[in-house]
Amino acid sequence: MKSLIGILVAVGFGWAARAAEPLSSWNDTAPKQALISFVQRVTRQGSPDFVPAPERIAVFDNDGTLWAEQPLYTQFQFVLDRVRSLAPQHPDWKTNEPFASVLNGDIKSAAALGVKGMLEITEATHSGMTTEQFSKTVADWIATARHPRTGKPYTEMVYQPMLELLSYFRANGFKTFIVSGGGVEFMRPWTEKVYGVPPEQVIGSRGKLKFEFLDGKPVLMKLPELDFLDDRDGKAIGIQNHIGQRPLAAFGNSDGDLQMLQWTAAGNGPRLLLLVHHDDAGREWAYDRQSQIGRLDKAWDEAIAKKWIVLSMKEDWKTVFPK
Amino acid sequence: MKSLIGILVAVGFGWAARAAEPLSSWNDTAPKQALISFVQRVTRQGSPDFVPAPERIAVFDNDGTLWAEQPLYTQFQFVLDRVRSLAPQHPDWKTNEPFASVLNGDIKSAAALGVKGMLEITEATHSGMTTEQFSKTVADWIATARHPRTGKPYTEMVYQPMLELLSYFRANGFKTFIVSGGGVEFMRPWTEKVYGVPPEQVIGSRGKLKFEFLDGKPVLMKLPELDFLDDRDGKAIGIQNHIGQRPLAAFGNSDGDLQMLQWTAAGNGPRLLLLVHHDDAGREWAYDRQSQIGRLDKAWDEAIAKKWIVLSMKEDWKTVFPK
Repeated sequence: MKSLIGILVAVGFGWAARAAEPLSSWNDTAPKQALISFVQRVTRQGSPDFVPAPERIAVFDNDGTLWAEQPLYTQFQFVLDRVRSLAPQHPDWKTNEPFASVLNGDIKSAAALGVKGMLEITEATHSGMTTEQFSKTVADWIATARHPRTGKPYTEMVYQPMLELLSYFRANGFKTFIVSGGGVEFMRPWTEKVYGVPPEQVIGSRGKLKFEFLDGKPVLMKLPELDFLDDRDGKAIGIQNHIGQRPLAAFGNSDGDLQMLQWTAAGNGPRLLLLVHHDDAGREWAYDRQSQIGRLDKAWDEAIAKKWIVLSMKEDWKTVFPK
Repeated sequence: MKSLIGILVAVGFGWAARAAEPLSSWNDTAPKQALISFVQRVTRQGSPDFVPAPERIAVFDNDGTLWAEQPLYTQFQFVLDRVRSLAPQHPDWKTNEPFASVLNGDIKSAAALGVKGMLEITEATHSGMTTEQFSKTVADWIATARHPRTGKPYTEMVYQPMLELLSYFRANGFKTFIVSGGGVEFMRPWTEKVYGVPPEQVIGSRGKLKFEFLDGKPVLMKLPELDFLDDRDGKAIGIQNHIGQRPLAAFGNSDGDLQMLQWTAAGNGPRLLLLVHHDDAGREWAYDRQSQIGRLDKAWDEAIAKKWIVLSMKEDWKTVFPK
């Protein structure tokens, strides 16, 4: 009985995977062919490159890889809105930088703060509350906030071809993880609904937490102190600490993803490494070596040298955003 | 076609789950009844307590909950063996405590070191190598080391009823996680084989890692510095950081598990909390309020006050170890 069921289940999954053409928003160019060829190599029983399902791990950067990151990281748009909402409780922000620039609407100065300034504002606005309160604040914000250029909800600023890629990998037995420099508590309230990635498969930066009792109930208070920065070296470390297996495939778009791709590439057997190159000013944005957000410079050079896939958003994607 | 497959798959899983009687090594006493009743409540479609599968999270302490922890935590037996193996490279250990006691075979003194002393020796023996080298060292050790009293491999010192419980939860759509004070890098090389828990579902203590290049290849070096202690408050924090969802069920055996059970219990809807009480000197060990290893004191009081399940190893388990 069990083996009959096993066959039915296996055949069932086979049918389901073949039912819809995979990656239909991808042009039939080299990246799509390489993705399909890679998945076939590691999933075909009897293939010399076959990898058992529990070891099929694929990791995806978020900002600029799964959704747009221009003109500012979405989480930083959230931070700016939080500064405005919380300002009445912090009169000193009117005169203290970097808060003053934000309150004066000087977003260019805010954008020029770099990681250090962003971290300072992020810590100030992401602490002094429980994880549950923060999660609700994020959920409320993401349900109503709109992208400054397109006027669309941020959750519609995701890349349709990458949604298809996530599904395609999962349909082939992969576990898909997000490995983002963004905050893990900022992503988890919506990643399952938007990407199909459950909270336990989201790795990100995080602040310190403190276990304490509030009105007799245990809570985790968010402290204004960075615990882990999941960027650059941190992405390889975050993967090891959280997943404990080396990914088979890694997807990024910027220098912050380089170590994640290096770490993935160094495994034995077939690996797939892909960088999204934002070269589509018409449908999205065009930026790379000079950009303050999502700079792609060293990782691009290494991708060329190592023959990793560099995807051209303009050439390789039929559509960019969901319709 | 898809819905037919869905039905076949659903029926298939139903058959498979019913095929073997669950929890056959459990006596038909209150804990077994409570476990089955809880799983039925949260998994039955239409039940007011129904919980969708992606939210079915169960967390298990390891030492003293899934396997034996007497007369010393297994990882500490490994540490002692490492001290002996590495001693020729560290001549100072002959005179420096706590290493000297270990090298003199004074295990009682070593056992009395407490968490601080154990951490010091652990950090010294778990660093200065890559994560891959460490993983291989653990795998080699666990394949050959023998428990000092029973002479059995440590991986046979696991509790048969808990193996069945892990399977039973998984067969009912739960994701099972280990949340242990032990080192995550010490557990992952064998937890999938022994417990069916994949590396990414193991949460534990860990040392700091450094990303660097060795012979042109990226590696993660283990540093002699604690990064995270997954014990007491740390268990609730570790669950939040790693899983990002509150568990439905939590299993422990000592005061180090109290905050994990409190955090789990504080969720809305049905929750199951269980402590293993080691009261079986004949088949295993008997220890609780006075034990240096796995002390069960405050958590026991709270379990009684809150009506959590306190399992008697002697009364509630037909067998303790696999046959």
